[in-house]
Amino acid sequence: MSEIHGLAVHAAGAHLLPYKYDPGELGRHEVEIKISHCGVCHSDVHLIDNDWGFTKYPFIPGHEIVGTVVGVGADVTGLKMGERVGVGWQADSCGVCEWCRQGDEHLCAKAQPTCVGRNGGYADKIRVNARFAIPVPAALESENAAPLMCAGITVYSPLRNHGVRPSSRVGVIGIGGLGHLGLQFARAFGAEVTAFSTAKDKEAEAKSLGAHNFVNTRDTGALKKVAGAFDLILSTVSADLDWQAYVAALRPKGVLCILGVGEAPMQLQGFSLIGGQKAVAGSPTGSPHDLHEMLDVAARHNVKALTEKFAMAKANDAVAKVKKNQVRYRAVLAN
Amino acid sequence: MSEIHGLAVHAAGAHLLPYKYDPGELGRHEVEIKISHCGVCHSDVHLIDNDWGFTKYPFIPGHEIVGTVVGVGADVTGLKMGERVGVGWQADSCGVCEWCRQGDEHLCAKAQPTCVGRNGGYADKIRVNARFAIPVPAALESENAAPLMCAGITVYSPLRNHGVRPSSRVGVIGIGGLGHLGLQFARAFGAEVTAFSTAKDKEAEAKSLGAHNFVNTRDTGALKKVAGAFDLILSTVSADLDWQAYVAALRPKGVLCILGVGEAPMQLQGFSLIGGQKAVAGSPTGSPHDLHEMLDVAARHNVKALTEKFAMAKANDAVAKVKKNQVRYRAVLAN
Repeated sequence: MSEIHGLAVHAAGAHLLPYKYDPGELGRHEVEIKISHCGVCHSDVHLIDNDWGFTKYPFIPGHEIVGTVVGVGADVTGLKMGERVGVGWQADSCGVCEWCRQGDEHLCAKAQPTCVGRNGGYADKIRVNARFAIPVPAALESENAAPLMCAGITVYSPLRNHGVRPSSRVGVIGIGGLGHLGLQFARAFGAEVTAFSTAKDKEAEAKSLGAHNFVNTRDTGALKKVAGAFDLILSTVSADLDWQAYVAALRPKGVLCILGVGEAPMQLQGFSLIGGQKAVAGSPTGSPHDLHEMLDVAARHNVKALTEKFAMAKANDAVAKVKKNQVRYRAVLAN
Repeated sequence: MSEIHGLAVHAAGAHLLPYKYDPGELGRHEVEIKISHCGVCHSDVHLIDNDWGFTKYPFIPGHEIVGTVVGVGADVTGLKMGERVGVGWQADSCGVCEWCRQGDEHLCAKAQPTCVGRNGGYADKIRVNARFAIPVPAALESENAAPLMCAGITVYSPLRNHGVRPSSRVGVIGIGGLGHLGLQFARAFGAEVTAFSTAKDKEAEAKSLGAHNFVNTRDTGALKKVAGAFDLILSTVSADLDWQAYVAALRPKGVLCILGVGEAPMQLQGFSLIGGQKAVAGSPTGSPHDLHEMLDVAARHNVKALTEKFAMAKANDAVAKVKKNQVRYRAVLAN
């Protein structure tokens, strides 16, 4: 088989350098994908810097992939050569545990992330278990669709799993890679949508993306003014927030769903959860089923990532700009 | 109308003294209930001591009431003179808000607790809105049924709302007034039931109440041994626990549901909620609908509070014993 050419870091925080590897024989359940686009997620940056302590080097980041099927394993059904597919955080799972059998492959104990212990999508090609290569609807542009595979599903799944409906009031904390998609998807569910941000200059854009309301969280008392207002709040930021204030902003039966966290433990007054029958939940990525559904919804409702394109060879520039939080709202590498 | 004779405290932490009041005309939507039994809940003790800062004196405690209808308001339907009914934490609600209309009266912003701002059940009679007087099935003894009206519904509601089924693995922290009912109800749902307790001598009784397993939480490493084991854990204790260890004890999609809390804020690592799609939820009492259902389930599955009976005139003895955590598992006052 031909070699795969990618970009790898060789030590924590190092620059990406050209790196090639031999993927060996194509597995019977695998597809090989010629990558056209790969989003740059904050998780890639954390992995590059070994912030989570488990990065193995050399390391090829990348898990927001769109490309074309160029190899199909002997036992693969449902995908054919030349088909356009996307791959997200997950590249494989055991397939036989209770979570896999019930369509929750992302909760499988043997779930294999696309770029942890495997070579990721900052490359010309990648191989994954065919179950995790999801056809991309024709209506979506590849550049805008790539970030949907991780950022998109991460905000879509909790909207779905917590039962958002047209009567719901949804808040989205943080208008970045995840949040700007959260506003669009929440609007697609028909909800009343509120953006929470520290960046006052994002108000107009947040509203153009679907927010009915904008709360500048730097304003004193801003959170108190929305006490008891939300059925679901998605927190997309990796920061230590005033969690108690957001719990207070929930209506009865409301859920504060965290998709990212800061370094300090969350501090919560249990009593405030009891009275209003509230919850603080976490949500990771989503299952292949939900990825399919999410892409269909995105195509139907014109949900797309706002992107800044970089040539794959300029990946270090993209990572640097992501680190400075200067991308609005997703850097995407293109081959 | 005749006076109502009860027992009231006149200052924080004082003894209960005989106290009578004139309830005035019976409201058109009210029933008057001749009380036969009233449970002594820890909340009564907190209110007696003004631990929550909003007790108004003179104060008649009591919100786990069983008795007989002796007065029926002009507009009351569905209840008749002589019928045996139970009353729990709640005595009235607005009846017209979205929560009342959808059968979640316990979440009504104008919910009136039975003994906060009203005269409670340590008395010979009480009046409540008829919607909150729930018929007690014949199979239940009044003494054993009274604690179901608060302790019982508090553990029943989350089992119901979080979808416990025969495949579920449920943990109950604390084998006291709530916990000993939680074990029985969890068993009635068909779940595999585990009791968590600091009291090793409760193991045999916990198992007789429905627990399949017993975890002595004073054993070093006991919680680590059950990591990833539970779909739902109900925390019934008012203590500062190692919340993170209980989150770790949840399976994917698991919920830690708190029914009581200690004084310190809960400390939680957000990351541990995200990966397994877990949640920390609170649950208060339940709705009239759920009270009906809970009593039916109790009658069908022989769920009953283990009680220690005190004459109403000996209420101070009962309160003192409750304060010392010496009652197994619920003190009940009897007229």
